[in-house]
Amino acid sequence: MPRVLVCYYSKTGNTKKMAQLIARAAEESGVEVELMRAKDVKGKDFAKFDGIIIGSPTYFGVMAAEVKDLLDRSIACYGKLMGRAGGAFTSSGNLAGGNETTIMSILQALLIHGMVVQGDHQGSHYGPVAVGEPDKRAEEECLRYGERFAELAKKLMA
Amino acid sequence: MPRVLVCYYSKTGNTKKMAQLIARAAEESGVEVELMRAKDVKGKDFAKFDGIIIGSPTYFGVMAAEVKDLLDRSIACYGKLMGRAGGAFTSSGNLAGGNETTIMSILQALLIHGMVVQGDHQGSHYGPVAVGEPDKRAEEECLRYGERFAELAKKLMA
Amino acid sequence: MPRVLVCYYSKTGNTKKMAQLIARAAEESGVEVELMRAKDVKGKDFAKFDGIIIGSPTYFGVMAAEVKDLLDRSIACYGKLMGRAGGAFTSSGNLAGGNETTIMSILQALLIHGMVVQGDHQGSHYGPVAVGEPDKRAEEECLRYGERFAELAKKLMA
Amino acid sequence: MPRVLVCYYSKTGNTKKMAQLIARAAEESGVEVELMRAKDVKGKDFAKFDGIIIGSPTYFGVMAAEVKDLLDRSIACYGKLMGRAGGAFTSSGNLAGGNETTIMSILQALLIHGMVVQGDHQGSHYGPVAVGEPDKRAEEECLRYGERFAELAKKLMA
Repeated sequence: MPRVLVCYYSKTGNTKKMAQLIARAAEESGVEVELMRAKDVKGKDFAKFDGIIIGSPTYFGVMAAEVKDLLDRSIACYGKLMGRAGGAFTSSGNLAGGNETTIMSILQALLIHGMVVQGDHQGSHYGPVAVGEPDKRAEEECLRYGERFAELAKKLMA
Repeated sequence: MPRVLVCYYSKTGNTKKMAQLIARAAEESGVEVELMRAKDVKGKDFAKFDGIIIGSPTYFGVMAAEVKDLLDRSIACYGKLMGRAGGAFTSSGNLAGGNETTIMSILQALLIHGMVVQGDHQGSHYGPVAVGEPDKRAEEECLRYGERFAELAKKLMA
Repeated sequence: MPRVLVCYYSKTGNTKKMAQLIARAAEESGVEVELMRAKDVKGKDFAKFDGIIIGSPTYFGVMAAEVKDLLDRSIACYGKLMGRAGGAFTSSGNLAGGNETTIMSILQALLIHGMVVQGDHQGSHYGPVAVGEPDKRAEEECLRYGERFAELAKKLMA
Repeated sequence: MPRVLVCYYSKTGNTKKMAQLIARAAEESGVEVELMRAKDVKGKDFAKFDGIIIGSPTYFGVMAAEVKDLLDRSIACYGKLMGRAGGAFTSSGNLAGGNETTIMSILQALLIHGMVVQGDHQGSHYGPVAVGEPDKRAEEECLRYGERFAELAKKLMA
């Protein structure tokens, strides 16, 4: 059974709520999930997981410093994450407020780890986005994302 | 008086409507404006303008081929646009549906021309975004953008 | 055996050469490969392949219009490519001349198709990049990429 | 006379060297320059400057956490930087190693502040890039950038 890490930084609780929904959906889809705050994750911890999903609020169109700090520390397992599943999500203050570029900033880091990321032809294409507190649309997006991510992690692990 | 080109590709009419609003607001702010469809603009035409604003629907997270074709043809005035004002806007099917990356794809091209672009701390930060048919929010964003762009073009021309 | 499409637009022959190297390496790694010019690919053709790799010269920091035109036409198989492997490469005039953003523009489009993309912790992280005519470094990068992509396509197809 | 801040994070000294070159060239072009490490800059300090140039090593394709931390703290002067000049540069481990996306991550943040950024049709289009220790090419790029940035800051301040 693949092990998936869902880690996040959250100030207002919106990103945390998304993380919980994604974690729950992934778990129900048959992967083992660990839900952690970014600052509690050690850089070398990444190597323990078959899939890593990272959430951040949209701060100036790029992941928050707390999240980037975790990624910078993940240099400790550079070269060990090739081919594993990666994903990203964000909660944002307003529409077109930098949410897509925030997700892309996380995906870029995961790609540089040699990880594998998937988009979606429906909804928020690059990863789940909430505008303000997660509404019904955002919640469903998170649930669907967790499920789909679990499938990807299983496939890549096979 | 600076001359500003507002050019666009529009299939459903949404991007066209945005272009018209931006053009009107720029004109009312004291610049001379030409409003054209992307395919009617010749590559070397760019050199005639002090500012260029380009609009595209959000197609697969990147400007539409018709718009890229104009930018590819604008190689005809490569090196002549340094320091002039540039901007971008998009109409999109859904929230987080690739609208930010579409605008960024246009801004990247304008930066490579050596042009000058401005963001906004309010609303859609990288440039006006409409989700579906421009609603009141999108309309006001376009009007504000046209006005602000005119100010930038005037400043850069001085 | 997975079927992989390597398609490209090339004016000077540099992108074509990269395409050929990637195609050869993928083929030698046990996938069936079709090598085509972008304009010869029909939009609905994408659905026939388990993996799609797209190459473009770096034109204004974004894929060339000919390549975007193919992606725009690929709307014909929207929703049918979920979970398939995708990749991108570029040949560029100079270092930091827009090559990374060109590759990202293609990857964004593939993600919006719901496809799966992989980065690399070595070399050009987002996909193979040649600066000018492909040199030894670029050639090896293309060969390694074709091989790695074939492995990903096989895994996702399983 | 416009006041320009050149701030950076540097571990190996490469980004610092670039910062010094840019600062010197800007100063010689008639602006007052302050050169500071990112961690020594207070978030509200940004408001004191007419132009802000930010440098970071290329860490996972995005600015380093230390630099993002400064930008996150700059929320203290949100809305006060509209129309001021902004710029970015990076030193990178290897070609196509994430340098363009690192610069873009900084430019996105500056655009969200409503700032004004300029590209270059020559050399590294989005901002100066050094691969490893700044060589002659990178040094000249930094000098040219500092000069050009000073001109932009003067124009915008007028």
